[in-house]
Amino acid sequence: MTTIQYRQVEVPEGVIDLGVGQPDASVFPAALLGRAAAACYATDASDEFLQYGADYGDGHHRVALAGFLTDAYNLAVDPELLFTTNGNSQALDLVCTMFTRHDDVVVVEEPTYFLARGILADHGLGAIGVPLDEDGMRVDLLELTLEKLASEGRPARLIYVIPAFNNPTGISLSAERRAMLADVAERHGALIVADEVYHLLDYDPPGPPPMSAWVDRGNVISMGTFSKILAPGLRLGWIHASSEILARLVSSGLVASGGGLNPVTSALVTEVIRSGDLAMNIESLRREYRRRVDVMDRALRANIPEGVTWRRPTGGYFFWLALPEGSDGESVRSTANEVGVDVRHGSLFSSHGGMRHHIRLSFAYYLDDEIVEGVARMGRALQA
Amino acid sequence: MTTIQYRQVEVPEGVIDLGVGQPDASVFPAALLGRAAAACYATDASDEFLQYGADYGDGHHRVALAGFLTDAYNLAVDPELLFTTNGNSQALDLVCTMFTRHDDVVVVEEPTYFLARGILADHGLGAIGVPLDEDGMRVDLLELTLEKLASEGRPARLIYVIPAFNNPTGISLSAERRAMLADVAERHGALIVADEVYHLLDYDPPGPPPMSAWVDRGNVISMGTFSKILAPGLRLGWIHASSEILARLVSSGLVASGGGLNPVTSALVTEVIRSGDLAMNIESLRREYRRRVDVMDRALRANIPEGVTWRRPTGGYFFWLALPEGSDGESVRSTANEVGVDVRHGSLFSSHGGMRHHIRLSFAYYLDDEIVEGVARMGRALQA
Repeated sequence: MTTIQYRQVEVPEGVIDLGVGQPDASVFPAALLGRAAAACYATDASDEFLQYGADYGDGHHRVALAGFLTDAYNLAVDPELLFTTNGNSQALDLVCTMFTRHDDVVVVEEPTYFLARGILADHGLGAIGVPLDEDGMRVDLLELTLEKLASEGRPARLIYVIPAFNNPTGISLSAERRAMLADVAERHGALIVADEVYHLLDYDPPGPPPMSAWVDRGNVISMGTFSKILAPGLRLGWIHASSEILARLVSSGLVASGGGLNPVTSALVTEVIRSGDLAMNIESLRREYRRRVDVMDRALRANIPEGVTWRRPTGGYFFWLALPEGSDGESVRSTANEVGVDVRHGSLFSSHGGMRHHIRLSFAYYLDDEIVEGVARMGRALQA
Repeated sequence: MTTIQYRQVEVPEGVIDLGVGQPDASVFPAALLGRAAAACYATDASDEFLQYGADYGDGHHRVALAGFLTDAYNLAVDPELLFTTNGNSQALDLVCTMFTRHDDVVVVEEPTYFLARGILADHGLGAIGVPLDEDGMRVDLLELTLEKLASEGRPARLIYVIPAFNNPTGISLSAERRAMLADVAERHGALIVADEVYHLLDYDPPGPPPMSAWVDRGNVISMGTFSKILAPGLRLGWIHASSEILARLVSSGLVASGGGLNPVTSALVTEVIRSGDLAMNIESLRREYRRRVDVMDRALRANIPEGVTWRRPTGGYFFWLALPEGSDGESVRSTANEVGVDVRHGSLFSSHGGMRHHIRLSFAYYLDDEIVEGVARMGRALQA
């Protein structure tokens, strides 16, 4: 295979890959980004954003972002507690560089976003999963895990969670559990790394507040990103955390040398925030995805055999299907591939090869007709 | 100090900081970037660059960049051997993540770019310096160092060098030494990380070929960046290396999760390359900096007392002044600060507190009048 490619994921012709956890191009706001780009270069603001950037991120951007988040999170967000990132993957990578050493242990949700584990592994970190129930991570079991790790002389350094609309399950951590999580982590000296990537993609508001609401506790790193609310290609996001945590990130060699991250792109997005286009775009995404949830849910009910269960998601990108106990998601996936549809099998998301009788479907990458057709094919695969 | 800032470096009013190793805003090509931005959003190319990017970097960008480098480096550069980065600081950070472990040893030039050492330190890496002479790193001494390290059971993992116009000395590694370096590193199983940031800013061509010319040896990572030839705020650069090295970088969790780096910005720069504006901009920078070299050299000869020596740089950003033996660059800097001028003292660039009787001056951040005035103040400080 040549390495000259144009996108991260290229789905083979004729296949509907309901496994792709990415937005499709129909929701990319190219017109509003084009307007923002024109505005950027229309003044001498470029004297600033073309230069090495301020360590915490461009000041104009942080002020605009704080204003946006204060509304969107319904929570007073201080611009001085924001740090600009290249998106949540880079943010997690930097957190690992600055807050861990090889062989440290990280606690994650079981199941969790499988690609986050690759970032942990690059830093020599082991991942230990704590099960979820319908209210998110079992914080009681987390506490037992943290106690056990401490007694073994290898206290957990980080707790990585996706509090809203967990990937792959779509489950959110309840408000009560969030408060418990902050307490438990504090007692055990672990940092909470909250990947709040889907927080603003809620289709049945209001849900619990973001983990941002606990940053004053000093052990919470809330990571947000424009990837899912504007466009992934921007590679722009933010960390909201205490001034001590941000000071540590800013002391990194990466920032000291190259300056704050992504000044040109953050200037572009500043225009999008100021114009009100970001808030409008999120409203439009909610409408779009809410409809796709309905479409996929109806298609599943019409096509998927009895014994397979799922919960209708209230946000995020995913349906998480439980096949009958004893089924193997990976072999279901092989059968599905034969009829031109793909998904992701559950064990990908497990820290120990569990979740075998689950599969994850996304509605973010396809429009209605393909969702319907993809689910119909999936139904045939499950009946095969 | 508030953390709401707009640039990495803010020079206090009234001070001329000849220590700043950054371009000034007068050379930022805002107009051509504005044109490129308009071109980007004028077609449906945004369907690609707004999406998660191809792992190695956007294909269009890599093809355009390879064409540009083939001309600029006078060397056939294969687009499949290019990987898009967020600039050389991020590139070095990623190389450390993927090719080192805590407590590994990295060999650097003595002196070297002081902020690179921060990136190494974040990864738990120790730096050992090998002296330069007028032909760059003493590769004979490098070999002795590598032998000694190997005999101590801690073989060097990386050799970090700035082959063209080293920061801070302005010295370039000769063509003969480059070939020797590739051989020595190969014999000792060390990777060469060549920070070729100033390679294209040569004011008296032709110099030796870039370390890119040795990538087929399989142990050379050539890092290039648009920071100095277009604008730092873009946070865009590239790695040119063997397919095995690139495959390792692409296997990182960072890329697997977030996709290739900076698709939106690389699309912008692709337009700048295709239009010919990049090559034109570099010509314009060469003319500008060649003149500033003359201005600073004349000002130094007119103002700096006898016993202080320097070599007129033939590229890059810096003059490296040797004060009389026994002088202390740091205390000279304090005196200089009192008369409204700043520089960087030599020991910043040393791995072991050496280079004390040197100071580094840059001509990149100021126009002629301020260079002249700054050097005049420096002359007064040195005579104080």
